[in-house]
Amino acid sequence: MRGTVLYGPRDVRFEDRPDPKILRPTDAIVRLSATCICGSDLWPYRGVSPIAQPTPIGHEYCGIVEEVGREVTSVKPGQFVIGSFFASDNTCPHCKAGYQTSCQQKELVGGAQAPMLRVPLADGTLVATPEVPPAALIPSLLTLSDVMGTGWFAAEAADVQPGKTVVVVGDGAVGLLGVLSARQMSAGRIIAMSRHPSRQGLAREFGATDILTERGDEGVTRIKDLTDGVGADAVLECVGTQESMTQAIQSTRPGGSVGYVGVPHGVELEGEGLFFTHVRLFGGPAPVRRFLPPLIDLVWKGRINPGKVFDLTLPLEKVAEGYRAMDERRAIKTLLHP
Amino acid sequence: MRGTVLYGPRDVRFEDRPDPKILRPTDAIVRLSATCICGSDLWPYRGVSPIAQPTPIGHEYCGIVEEVGREVTSVKPGQFVIGSFFASDNTCPHCKAGYQTSCQQKELVGGAQAPMLRVPLADGTLVATPEVPPAALIPSLLTLSDVMGTGWFAAEAADVQPGKTVVVVGDGAVGLLGVLSARQMSAGRIIAMSRHPSRQGLAREFGATDILTERGDEGVTRIKDLTDGVGADAVLECVGTQESMTQAIQSTRPGGSVGYVGVPHGVELEGEGLFFTHVRLFGGPAPVRRFLPPLIDLVWKGRINPGKVFDLTLPLEKVAEGYRAMDERRAIKTLLHP
Repeated sequence: MRGTVLYGPRDVRFEDRPDPKILRPTDAIVRLSATCICGSDLWPYRGVSPIAQPTPIGHEYCGIVEEVGREVTSVKPGQFVIGSFFASDNTCPHCKAGYQTSCQQKELVGGAQAPMLRVPLADGTLVATPEVPPAALIPSLLTLSDVMGTGWFAAEAADVQPGKTVVVVGDGAVGLLGVLSARQMSAGRIIAMSRHPSRQGLAREFGATDILTERGDEGVTRIKDLTDGVGADAVLECVGTQESMTQAIQSTRPGGSVGYVGVPHGVELEGEGLFFTHVRLFGGPAPVRRFLPPLIDLVWKGRINPGKVFDLTLPLEKVAEGYRAMDERRAIKTLLHP
Repeated sequence: MRGTVLYGPRDVRFEDRPDPKILRPTDAIVRLSATCICGSDLWPYRGVSPIAQPTPIGHEYCGIVEEVGREVTSVKPGQFVIGSFFASDNTCPHCKAGYQTSCQQKELVGGAQAPMLRVPLADGTLVATPEVPPAALIPSLLTLSDVMGTGWFAAEAADVQPGKTVVVVGDGAVGLLGVLSARQMSAGRIIAMSRHPSRQGLAREFGATDILTERGDEGVTRIKDLTDGVGADAVLECVGTQESMTQAIQSTRPGGSVGYVGVPHGVELEGEGLFFTHVRLFGGPAPVRRFLPPLIDLVWKGRINPGKVFDLTLPLEKVAEGYRAMDERRAIKTLLHP
């Protein structure tokens, strides 16, 4: 097959690679119906997170099971499945507690920007849909592999509650789906921080009640203005930089919560300062496996349409153009058809 | 009157000071029945938190109202009252949300190691007991001014739940009362980190089920051993150093919580590392005002006896010896009688 390999900063190649094979009896091979580029793929693409060697890339996937190892019992060839970007056994204490991305056997799924993918720990990782979905549902189902579940976890970690005021920092796909998640959780007011017209539009469509274009201290001041000087109850930090984290914490009321899901890059938190904010901090790699069954149900019933974050669709062999479009913020998120 | 003034590292003096007066119509003057020395007083005493000038010290207090300003309506002369170390109006949005130590009008109460004390915002800050208490209850009631409420907040912030496994880092008075709080909240297992025999004894009396003498990485390893490799559900960080915070975070299971109440001194948290622990972090200055009514009730009914943390009682004029005893860890906590 041909798959996507990152060679170094801004050097993405689509090239011959060996077909994936069952390596362990708990593996499955999935023929992908769709894959996509994640905001987090841009960190190594931009050279912010250096890579040691050419690396097959991509970790969001859904498709038809092609083959399973002899110990796999919960999915079978022909089923349409979605899985998390971290493989997990779904039986260890961390999985049972709902934190499958901290599974004691966790394994990062890599090389998903390809037509075929080996998924380890298939029984714990993959969830089958009720039947093979119509093509129109595939973009939304694909988002459940990472970006939608990550936005959902940001909202859960920030303890979004009915009627409360929510701020979303970051207008990438995760932030936009954080808006959608907060709406599903019946937040009263959802303030999206965005200065990009098309993203503002999608934020409104997903349920944002206010859009702020200011950032940093100015952004914090505007949020305080909008909340009678109090701050927001719940803030979703969906970027991962020092500026966004600081802005998130300072926008939160005492006793409120920041849910952070952007992998922090160079973020340092000073203990005494954080102490006196009275802000609860929770985040990490989203345990999207936990959210797969309920979110599949919401997509299947047409209650949510997270696939709208894909504003660029390309054939897989044009993957390098997909990266360029996202790097230059011409696209929110690129869907790739093998 | 004569009161306690800190002049610099290890230089505590008991000297003539002006009697406190009503300065604002919302003030009250309280004649103290007892006061004490806080672990946090040791930071400036040891020179870790430098002071700019000689400073009246002490912030834990209870006693009889002597005089009130003309706007004070909720307490009156002759009543026995307890108040928080932060004065608060108890009416602003942060107070109403239960975070009185982030009150929009908050004011640190200082100079309480003295016979008389001015308490600002008396209506919001002071809570009267049902009647003037017998002398035997006064030590326990005094702890509600800070240390008991702080241990309680550590347990609340760490989300202690019935049946769960709790670790308490720090065997000072706050840590010991964190043990007592976790017990009241029906924790299943309470692991106290202590290498000091008398503190171990009190920890057991307050409800600790296990005592660990190891620290740092060794302490973390022992906690993992005791929890089948999983980690604790809730960890109370009651020290405020980098070592104690790191130990607390590493002892917590993914999805678990650290409640931190020791004012952090030189603590830095690295964002990416924290992210992958999946640990929830919450703390700050304890909103003890919120806990005063329920904790007064527990003390009044004899259900808890937090006053046992006082293992040294001195007349107020011997305050300097009280500091020395705590600095040298000869005493857990010193009660001072004016």
